[in-house]
Amino acid sequence: MPQSNPVHYADAAPAVRAVYDDIKTTRGVDDVNNFWKHIANHPPTLKRTWESVKEAMAPGALTSLVKEMVFVAVSVSNGCEYCLRCHTDAARKQGMTDDMLGELIAVAGVATQSNILATGYQIPLDEDLKG
Amino acid sequence: MPQSNPVHYADAAPAVRAVYDDIKTTRGVDDVNNFWKHIANHPPTLKRTWESVKEAMAPGALTSLVKEMVFVAVSVSNGCEYCLRCHTDAARKQGMTDDMLGELIAVAGVATQSNILATGYQIPLDEDLKG
Amino acid sequence: MPQSNPVHYADAAPAVRAVYDDIKTTRGVDDVNNFWKHIANHPPTLKRTWESVKEAMAPGALTSLVKEMVFVAVSVSNGCEYCLRCHTDAARKQGMTDDMLGELIAVAGVATQSNILATGYQIPLDEDLKG
Amino acid sequence: MPQSNPVHYADAAPAVRAVYDDIKTTRGVDDVNNFWKHIANHPPTLKRTWESVKEAMAPGALTSLVKEMVFVAVSVSNGCEYCLRCHTDAARKQGMTDDMLGELIAVAGVATQSNILATGYQIPLDEDLKG
Amino acid sequence: MPQSNPVHYADAAPAVRAVYDDIKTTRGVDDVNNFWKHIANHPPTLKRTWESVKEAMAPGALTSLVKEMVFVAVSVSNGCEYCLRCHTDAARKQGMTDDMLGELIAVAGVATQSNILATGYQIPLDEDLKG
Amino acid sequence: MPQSNPVHYADAAPAVRAVYDDIKTTRGVDDVNNFWKHIANHPPTLKRTWESVKEAMAPGALTSLVKEMVFVAVSVSNGCEYCLRCHTDAARKQGMTDDMLGELIAVAGVATQSNILATGYQIPLDEDLKG
Repeated sequence: MPQSNPVHYADAAPAVRAVYDDIKTTRGVDDVNNFWKHIANHPPTLKRTWESVKEAMAPGALTSLVKEMVFVAVSVSNGCEYCLRCHTDAARKQGMTDDMLGELIAVAGVATQSNILATGYQIPLDEDLKG
Repeated sequence: MPQSNPVHYADAAPAVRAVYDDIKTTRGVDDVNNFWKHIANHPPTLKRTWESVKEAMAPGALTSLVKEMVFVAVSVSNGCEYCLRCHTDAARKQGMTDDMLGELIAVAGVATQSNILATGYQIPLDEDLKG
Repeated sequence: MPQSNPVHYADAAPAVRAVYDDIKTTRGVDDVNNFWKHIANHPPTLKRTWESVKEAMAPGALTSLVKEMVFVAVSVSNGCEYCLRCHTDAARKQGMTDDMLGELIAVAGVATQSNILATGYQIPLDEDLKG
Repeated sequence: MPQSNPVHYADAAPAVRAVYDDIKTTRGVDDVNNFWKHIANHPPTLKRTWESVKEAMAPGALTSLVKEMVFVAVSVSNGCEYCLRCHTDAARKQGMTDDMLGELIAVAGVATQSNILATGYQIPLDEDLKG
Repeated sequence: MPQSNPVHYADAAPAVRAVYDDIKTTRGVDDVNNFWKHIANHPPTLKRTWESVKEAMAPGALTSLVKEMVFVAVSVSNGCEYCLRCHTDAARKQGMTDDMLGELIAVAGVATQSNILATGYQIPLDEDLKG
Repeated sequence: MPQSNPVHYADAAPAVRAVYDDIKTTRGVDDVNNFWKHIANHPPTLKRTWESVKEAMAPGALTSLVKEMVFVAVSVSNGCEYCLRCHTDAARKQGMTDDMLGELIAVAGVATQSNILATGYQIPLDEDLKG
C-alpha cells in the first residue's frame, strides 16, 4: 500500500477541480503534477498550499527565477528529492543555466559548512550584530 | 569555559595573520569578524574555509546579492543564528531591502512546508522528472 | 553490498530470538518487521531499542494512537521514509482515518513553516514565556 | 541591530491591524504575541500565516490538544525554541499535564532515535508496506 | 515560566535518587548535571536514558574517547548547544586535544558539505555499493 | 531527465581530468566514483571539494579510520544515503568491523535522542560549562 494515492481530475470533487483548474490556468499547463494530486487527499491542504505557493512564488521584490533558486536551495538543505527535482526544473524554465545551478549548489554547500563551523565553535555574535 | 576563544590579530601566527589580511583587503574592512577569529583555532580550517567562501561567494553566473540571499535561506533552514545574522547584514549591504528579505523568508517557509508535504504523502516523481 | 543484511529467526542467536519472541507476543504478530531484523546485527542495540520503544509507546497519559501519530509527525520532520511508512500503518491500525492523517500532516507542515519564520525573523521570547 | 523589530498595534497599517484584531478575537487575548508582531514586517506573510494557522490548528478530526502537542513535537525536532515554548504553553492551556508532556518528549526522542537506526542500517521497506 | 525546572536530589523521589546515585558512582562525580535533573521530571525517561547512555557510551569495540567525539559531531550536526558543550567537555577529559577538536569539527563540516552536494546533484549509488 | 549526468574521464576537460588523476593517485583506484563524476559538472566545485576532502580526511591528530567513522555518523544524522554508503565502505577498508559499526550507529542514535531531550526540556547550561 502506498503512503497515498493520486487524486485524478476525473475523480476529483468540485472543490479539488477548482484548484486544479486554477493551477493549470496560472501556469499554462495541461495537467497538474503529482504534488497537487497527492495532497488533494486532504482538500483543505490542497487549497491552502496552492494559495500560499501562488502568492509567495509570484514575482515581487524578487524575481520568479530567484525565488525558484531559493526553493531549490532550501529543498537541498532539507533533503527533499521531489521538491528539489520539480523546482530545479521550474528554475531551468525560468532561465537557470548549468553554471547558475552549479553556483547555487556551491553556495548551499559552503553555507551549510559555515553553519557547522559556527555551531561547532559556538561563535558569539559580533557587537555590531547584537540588538 | 567557552567552547572556543577568539584568536586576535596581535596574538595570531603568521599563517593566520595572512588569512586575516586577505579577508580585510578583499572586503575592505578594518577587522575580521568573530567567525574567522574562532575558526582560527584550527588554522587549516581557517585557510580552507576562507578560500572556499571567497571563491563560492564571488560574483559569477549569480550576483553577490543572490548568493548572500541563498546563504541566508540555507542558514534559516539550518537554524544557525550566527550565519543568519551575518549574512542578512551582508545581503543588506549588497542592496537587499526589507521587502526582499520578507519575500526571501516567505519562500523559505513555503518551500520547507512543501518539503514536509512531499515527504508526508511520499509523493512519487512525475514521469517527466524521472531519469 | 547492502548496508546491512536482515537477521532471520532461524539464524538468530538466543538473545536475539528472545527479543523477537517478546515483540511477536506483545504485538500479536507472526514475524517481526525489517527494522528489528536489521538492527539485530548489533544485539545490544536491538534489545535496548525494543525496551525503549515498548515502554515509550505503551499507552499512558497519552493513548497509543496519539503516540503513533506523534511518531509519524517526527519521522516526516526527519525525512525517514521507513519509519514514516511503518508508523502510518501502525496509526491506521489504531484507528487513524484519512482525515486524521491529512490534519496531522497539515499541522506538521504549518509547524515547520512557523519554525522557519520564527528563526528567520529571530523572534524573541514573549515576557510571559521567559523564566 | 536586531534581525527584526516588532510592529506594535499603534504603529500598524490597517491590513496588519485587521489580522491582529482577528487573532485577538479568535483567541480571546488582549494582545498578539511576538511571533505575529515580527512577521508583520511582511504583511502578506502575516496574513497568510495567520490564515494557515487558524485553519490547520482548528479542531477537526483531531482535537486542538492533539494538534498543539504535534506542533510541540515538530518544533522540538526542528530545534525551534520560540515555537516550542509558545506551543507548550498553548498545549498546557488545552489540558496537557506534566505527564503528557513527559510522554510526548519521550516519544519524540524514541522516534528520532529510530529514524537514525533506520537510516544507519538502510532498512528496506517490508513487502506489505511497498506500493 | 521555564520549559522545565531541575529536580534536585533533596526533593527527588527514591526512583530518581537511585538513578542519580548510579550516575554519580559510575562517573565519580559529586552531583549530576542539569541534563539529568531536568529529564527527571519524567522518571521513566530519566531511567531509560541513563541506561541507554551508560550502555552505549561504555568502551567496547570503540573507545570512550571516540564515542565522545562522535557524540560531539552528531550534536553539532543537530545544532544542540547543550549536548555539544557537555560532550566536548567529556571528550577533553578523555584526552581530546585542541587539534583533535579542530579536526573533528573540520570533518563534520566537510561531511555535511558533501551531503549537500550529493543531494543537490542527486548522485546515484555506484554499482559496487548497490545491493 | 536526471538531476545531473556524470562527466566521464574521456569527455572531461583538462582541469577536470587533473582532479580525477589526483584522486586516483592519492587513493590508488582505477576510476573515481560517481560523487566526483557528478560534481564535475561544476569544475570549481570539483576542485575545491577534492582539496577540502583530501586535506580534512588525511590522518593527523585523528586517524583516517576515526575520521571516516565521524563522516558516517554525520551522514546518518543528515540522512544522506549516498555519503553514508560510500563512507561506510571506506571505513570498512580502514578496518571498521561490524561491531564497531554497530557501536557507531548506537552512539549516533543515543546522541540524537539526547539532543531531542535537551531541546524538549530546554536544559540550561551547567555553571561550569558557561563562559
